[in-house]
Formats: sequence, C-alpha cells, structure tokens
Amino acid sequence: MRPVDLIRKKRDGGEHSRDEIATLVNGYTRGDIPDYQMSAWLMAVVVRGMTREEIAALTDIMLRSGAVLDLSVLPGKKVDKHSTGGVGDKTSFLIVAIVAAAGLTVPMISGRGLGHTGGTLDKLEAIPGFNVNLSGAAFINVLKTCGCSIIGQSAEIVPADKKIYALRDVTGTVESPALICASIMSKKIAEGIDALVLDVKTGSGAFMKKEADAIHLAELMVETGERMGKRVAALITDMEQPLGYAVGNSLEIIECIELLRGEGSNHPPQALSADLLELSIELCAWMFYIAGRVSGVEAGRALSHEMIATGKALDKFKEMLRLQGGGDVSVVDKPSRLPHAQNKVEVKSQTSGFVTSMQCEQVGIVSLMLGGGRSKKEDVIDPAVGLVLHKKVGHPVRSGETLATIHYNAHSESKLAEAMLLLTESYSIGPNPPAVTRPLIHGVIGGQK
Amino acid sequence: MRPVDLIRKKRDGGEHSRDEIATLVNGYTRGDIPDYQMSAWLMAVVVRGMTREEIAALTDIMLRSGAVLDLSVLPGKKVDKHSTGGVGDKTSFLIVAIVAAAGLTVPMISGRGLGHTGGTLDKLEAIPGFNVNLSGAAFINVLKTCGCSIIGQSAEIVPADKKIYALRDVTGTVESPALICASIMSKKIAEGIDALVLDVKTGSGAFMKKEADAIHLAELMVETGERMGKRVAALITDMEQPLGYAVGNSLEIIECIELLRGEGSNHPPQALSADLLELSIELCAWMFYIAGRVSGVEAGRALSHEMIATGKALDKFKEMLRLQGGGDVSVVDKPSRLPHAQNKVEVKSQTSGFVTSMQCEQVGIVSLMLGGGRSKKEDVIDPAVGLVLHKKVGHPVRSGETLATIHYNAHSESKLAEAMLLLTESYSIGPNPPAVTRPLIHGVIGGQK
Repeated sequence: MRPVDLIRKKRDGGEHSRDEIATLVNGYTRGDIPDYQMSAWLMAVVVRGMTREEIAALTDIMLRSGAVLDLSVLPGKKVDKHSTGGVGDKTSFLIVAIVAAAGLTVPMISGRGLGHTGGTLDKLEAIPGFNVNLSGAAFINVLKTCGCSIIGQSAEIVPADKKIYALRDVTGTVESPALICASIMSKKIAEGIDALVLDVKTGSGAFMKKEADAIHLAELMVETGERMGKRVAALITDMEQPLGYAVGNSLEIIECIELLRGEGSNHPPQALSADLLELSIELCAWMFYIAGRVSGVEAGRALSHEMIATGKALDKFKEMLRLQGGGDVSVVDKPSRLPHAQNKVEVKSQTSGFVTSMQCEQVGIVSLMLGGGRSKKEDVIDPAVGLVLHKKVGHPVRSGETLATIHYNAHSESKLAEAMLLLTESYSIGPNPPAVTRPLIHGVIGGQK
Repeated sequence: MRPVDLIRKKRDGGEHSRDEIATLVNGYTRGDIPDYQMSAWLMAVVVRGMTREEIAALTDIMLRSGAVLDLSVLPGKKVDKHSTGGVGDKTSFLIVAIVAAAGLTVPMISGRGLGHTGGTLDKLEAIPGFNVNLSGAAFINVLKTCGCSIIGQSAEIVPADKKIYALRDVTGTVESPALICASIMSKKIAEGIDALVLDVKTGSGAFMKKEADAIHLAELMVETGERMGKRVAALITDMEQPLGYAVGNSLEIIECIELLRGEGSNHPPQALSADLLELSIELCAWMFYIAGRVSGVEAGRALSHEMIATGKALDKFKEMLRLQGGGDVSVVDKPSRLPHAQNKVEVKSQTSGFVTSMQCEQVGIVSLMLGGGRSKKEDVIDPAVGLVLHKKVGHPVRSGETLATIHYNAHSESKLAEAMLLLTESYSIGPNPPAVTRPLIHGVIGGQK
C-alpha cells in the first residue's frame, strides 16, 4: 500500500497491521515519506485513535528504529521512573539517589522542558559543569560506578521518536494517548530496563487535566510495557498545584538537596516540600517493589526513608554529580553556590482567608516568562530565575502576607509586572478552607508481579 | 493565533473565524505555512468537518487568493456548468455549443483527468491543434467572438486551490465535502459567472458513491454559491454506468460530434448515446432557466433541442475549435480525422441474459490502463485509445455477442489481457432485466430565482 492509502485507511477509522505501521514509521525515519504525509497520518491517529495492538506495534517499531542499551554487564535489576510532567516536578533527582543508594541501577534518559513544565536536563544543567551528553559507553560506566545516571536522548536512541516528536510539536498532534504512550514507552524500554514506574499526573498543571484521561494513558502504558516483558506500575498523582515549594531550575535543585540533607523545616518555604518528599518516597517504594528489592510497597517506603536518614542518598547524588559534573560537587554541601537571581520581589495577598485552589499551569508559565523555560526551542534558559511558594492549597493567609517570592534577573524586568499579576491571579483565596482535599496519590495501575 | 493553535482548534472540533481561515490559507499560499502544518489541518477538516459559515469563508478567501475574471465587457448573462466527474462524462462539449448558440456566454475553466475519470482538457487536446492554454485576454476574446471557450486553470486563478489541491491529493485529504465545495466554487466563481449548474454524480463510477453524500455536497455548493450572489442549481445524476458509448479521449469527442450532427442511430454504439444527450439537454435547460434566457426548464429543453436540430450548436462548436485550434476544424465534418488507435479487439459475452449492472469505476480504469488517462501526474496520455460500449444496463445479450470494443495501440499490448478481463468482469449479466431502473436525474437542488 502507498503511504496515501495508509493515511486514508486511518482517516476512515481503519486498524493498521504491524507491516503498515512499519511502512510509515520506518519510511518517515529514513526520509522516504515526507513530513506532510506523516503529519496528515498523525492527525488521523489523534482523531481516530489506535487499538492496543496498533500501539504495541508502533512502540516496538519505534524502539527498533535505533539502538537498545545492553545493560547486562551490570549486576542486578535496572529500574526507572518516568513522569508525564508537571510544575515543580523534581522527584527524579531524589529518586535516582535513593534507589541507587539501595543497590539498584537507575539508567535515566530524560528530556528538556517545553511548554509550561520544566525539563529534568535543564534543571541538572543549573549545576555548574554537569554534563548530560554522555555517550552510551560513558553512561554505562557511570551506572557501573554509582548505580545512577541522568542523560539526554542521544541520536542512536529511538531516532523515529525524535523525528516524529519534533513534527507532532508543530502540527497539533501531541495530544494522543496512543502517540504519547508509544513515544514514552519506546524510549524507556530502549534504556534496557527490567521495570518501570510511571508518574501519570492529573490536574490543572498536568497535560492530562482530567483524571479519566490520565487513567486511560496509564493503562495503555502499563499494558504496552507488560506486552514487551517489563514490569510496570503507574501512579496517578495530583498536579493541581506545584510540587514542593520551588519552580525554576536552580531553585528546584536546591529544594532537592535540602530534602536529601534532611533539612525540611516547620516554616515556609521548606515546610512546603512535604508533598514532594511523599511522592518521591512513594515512587521509590514502587520501584523497589516491582524490581523485587522488597516484598511489599510498605517495606519500600521504609527503605526509601532509610536511604535519606542515613545520608546514603545524599552521598549517591554527590557521586553522580562528581562522575557527570567533572568537578564542582560542593553545591551539595553549599547549595548557595548554585546560580542565584540578582533580584527578588514578594507577591503579597490582598485579602485574608484560605488558599482554595491554584492555577498550576499558570504558575509554570510565570517561571517560563521570567526565562526559566523555553517558548521556542532556540530560547536560552536562565537557570537562576523562578519562584518560591510560601502558600499552597489549604493554607491560611492574611492580607499583606507573602504568597510567593519571584526570583528574576535584569533581562526579565520588562515582564515582571505581568508575572506578578499572573502569579497573584493563580491563587484563589476564599473565606473557608477547600471543602475537599485532593489526595496526592489518586491510585495505582498495574504493578502486578 | 499561531498555525499550530489553529490546527489544534479544528482537531478538537472547533469552528474557525474568517480571520483564522485567512491566516491559514493565505499563509500557506504565500509559503509562510509549511506543507506539514497545512496537511495536518486539512486532515482535521476532513474528519471534523466545517460549518456552512466556515465553508463560505474558505471559498471566498480562496477565490480572493487570485484574480477574478471581469466579464462585464461581454453582453448578457455568463453561465457555466461543472461536473463532479464520472466515466464517459462528455456533456461539456455539447453544452458549451448549445448554450452559446442560444446567445449566452459560457466561460468554462476546466481540469485534467486524475484517477478513473477523464479530464475535459485531455479530451479536447485529442483534437489536433486545440489550445487550452489561453491568457485571460485571449479567453475573453474568444468568448466575445463565439460565446464559449474551454481553457485550463491559469496560475492567476485561485492559486490557493492549486497549491492546496496538490497537497490534498497526496495526503489522503481529498474526500471532504467542505474542501471539495470550496475548491469547486472558488474556481467557478473566479470565472466571473452569474449562474452555475452543477452536475453532482452518484453511483459506482462517481466520487460520491452514495446518493446522500452527493445531495449533501450539492446542498453545500448551492448554498455557498447563493451566499456569494450567484444563481446555482445542482442536478443529482446517475453514474452507475458510463455516460454514452465512448470512454477515451478521441472516441468521446467523436461521440459528441455525432450528436451535434444529429447522427444518433437505432443501432449500437450510437444508440447508446441517448443518456448522454438527455443529460446534456437537461443541464442546458437548467442553464437557460437560471440565467433567465427562458421562463421555465421545459422551454429550456425545447431551446436546447432547437440549437442541435438547426445545426447552430455544431456551428458554434466548430467556431470555438477554429478560434482555439488555430486551423483544423475539418474534424467536425470528418470525425474520422481524429486520432485513431491501430488495433481493436472485441470483448464478448460468455453467457446469455440481460446486463443487470456495470462496475462503472472499473470501466474507467480500463481506459486508464490502455493509456487514456494518468496514474501519475507525469504520465503522457494517448488520445486514441479507449473503449466503445455495445451493451449497457438493461440490454439483452446473447452468448458470443460483443459487449464492448477495446481500442488500443502497441504500447498497451502488455496490459491488454488484464484490460479485457476487467472489462468483462465489469458487466454483471443475469437471467432477467434489473428489477429497478435507476433514473438518469435523481433530483434537483436549488435553482430558485
């Protein structure tokens, strides 16, 4: 069948055979099928959807478009975590340290931020000298030495996804559970892992605003991973407000180091890290469980806490920085050495009452506006800027009290007034606390032995 | 809004404003919006559809992407006919002659064949020397002199459609009533007409196989034309078998000249031209009526017959050939001077009974295979090849009797066996005549004064 016939088939709601999907994906990756045909097909997929069989075939074909890491030289189970992205989502830095400290291997290949959510690689690059561009061999060496490493996607890993994702981004074809599932799962399985925990976020700051959509995507990813012989668990987690207190690259690394150092406090902003810590522990507990390190999730939670309390997780994080950073690991002991913005301004409440909700995506956009993220791929990120929350949902607030502090540099001064307004407006304050408290963990899908 | 946001809007079933459609269409025509974004949007339109307001805006914006002919220098009403395409559909040659002979102006800008249907321009080019590539000024001069002219679409006429149509053809986005309507109506209105009769075909040889789809498209086109101040009537006509007896470029011109010369006979194949003549008369009658030349359709039929009987239509056809052909109009008197294939072979019935139905699209494909049409745009057409039907639906047939004659040249000999088989198989022959006779005219939409 010609590509145009395959496009018409999906347009009319047909189901593709594995060969048909291979024709399209491999033809596009090779450059035989032009962008304009692929984008028409992708749009047909977005609107018509894909069956589980089609998604499994697409994932497998994308996976085979490039190299699959062979981590068999490393002892023990390899396990990773993937998040669908949110605001202030910095669990990765805690997780790699905690899980590797307990003797498992975490080969994390991560991405950059686009849109209102920050990128793991961008945050790591706030640490002076940290190198996310390791070769496959160097990556394996770091894993062999310290058990964890976070790098960017190289050209050899799932080239089909690299090319298709770039096209989806500019053709309105991102929002497809089938395409999201295949993109994520092909990249994660290419890491050579045995098990995977997915953090599928739902709420105003997530890509999947509706819980039902998050559950659907989670089910697709769990089923696809299990079809490919992996153990997969998906946690549906809340993203109605930022995770922790910091939004912005350097600020988020600082928050993580504080947690690894056991420096949570009873006062803001550090007291606001509780949800970040809880979610990180929960994700680690599931990673330990499905990788067979512990016999139950509760034991996994205890092990995670132990890795922090003993300082082993902090040491592991420092070791990874040393191996990938080529030098300055002093930031772990003195987070103040990380880039700092030159100016701060406090956003204050104009009313008294309780924070009833937050426009989470809008908070992410404030950080983006200040230079903490990219609107276009060419944009250069300022690692120092961002914001620190002093109040989150449910908190009492008095008129004149600080809601959040904006960290900014000279280049973002022209956007400061708008950023302050957006941040103020992202808080809803009412006379009573919110009637219903949203749970941090909405549920778990998969995770069966 | 950025193009990607507009794509997402249509993808999610939203309705575009006129400005949004202009952003996309004009941006694409200028080259600011790349093919891959336009094809994603086109696919979203195919699947999600467009409202009447969107279709009207799209038609108008496409129309304004180029020049609109100013025929105000010509006296009287300008009226045209457009067919959605079928097999053996050659009414245009009869119609321009009949309508112009009665004093109206028919400024027909036509297209080439692609797929299983022949193209008006390709058929005209079977006449030695006939030139379809006139400038706008030359076109108007021919119209001034003889009242009718058939030319191809120049670069100045609806450039947006030219570019969009080429993209639709290779991205599976042809089959959209909204896009078909805007493409047809923008081109027809650019001709500077006052009134338009549409021949919307339905049946196995038409693009709209289902009558409901044909009616829907007809309604869209009539409404769109009326919104733009034109009088429009759409006839829903039958395409379950080829129109007339000839399929193939030169053969179809010969069939038309015979009809204009009053040479229908009681024996095949000329007797099989009856449906072609009836449909042509009906279309002319509606053209006369909506252009105000007659007070009713019945009077229009009488006027059409008169133009043939008096030889005025034949003279008009000859005049158009002379003005556009630069010389050899002798083919009108001696059609045998048109290109003839070197070989003929008869396809005979292997059974006795009645023709109960024909696979009309398949008959068109036989002509295409012989070299009478294009599979790819670069293909060169052989004007001489094609086929002549001796039997059509309802006819009695004896075993061994000729069903059709294939006209072929040496280059198509390798495909002859397959062509003969396809043609044989396109006839269904049963013991009884078909229980239901399909009418030639299924209905009329619009046409109100």
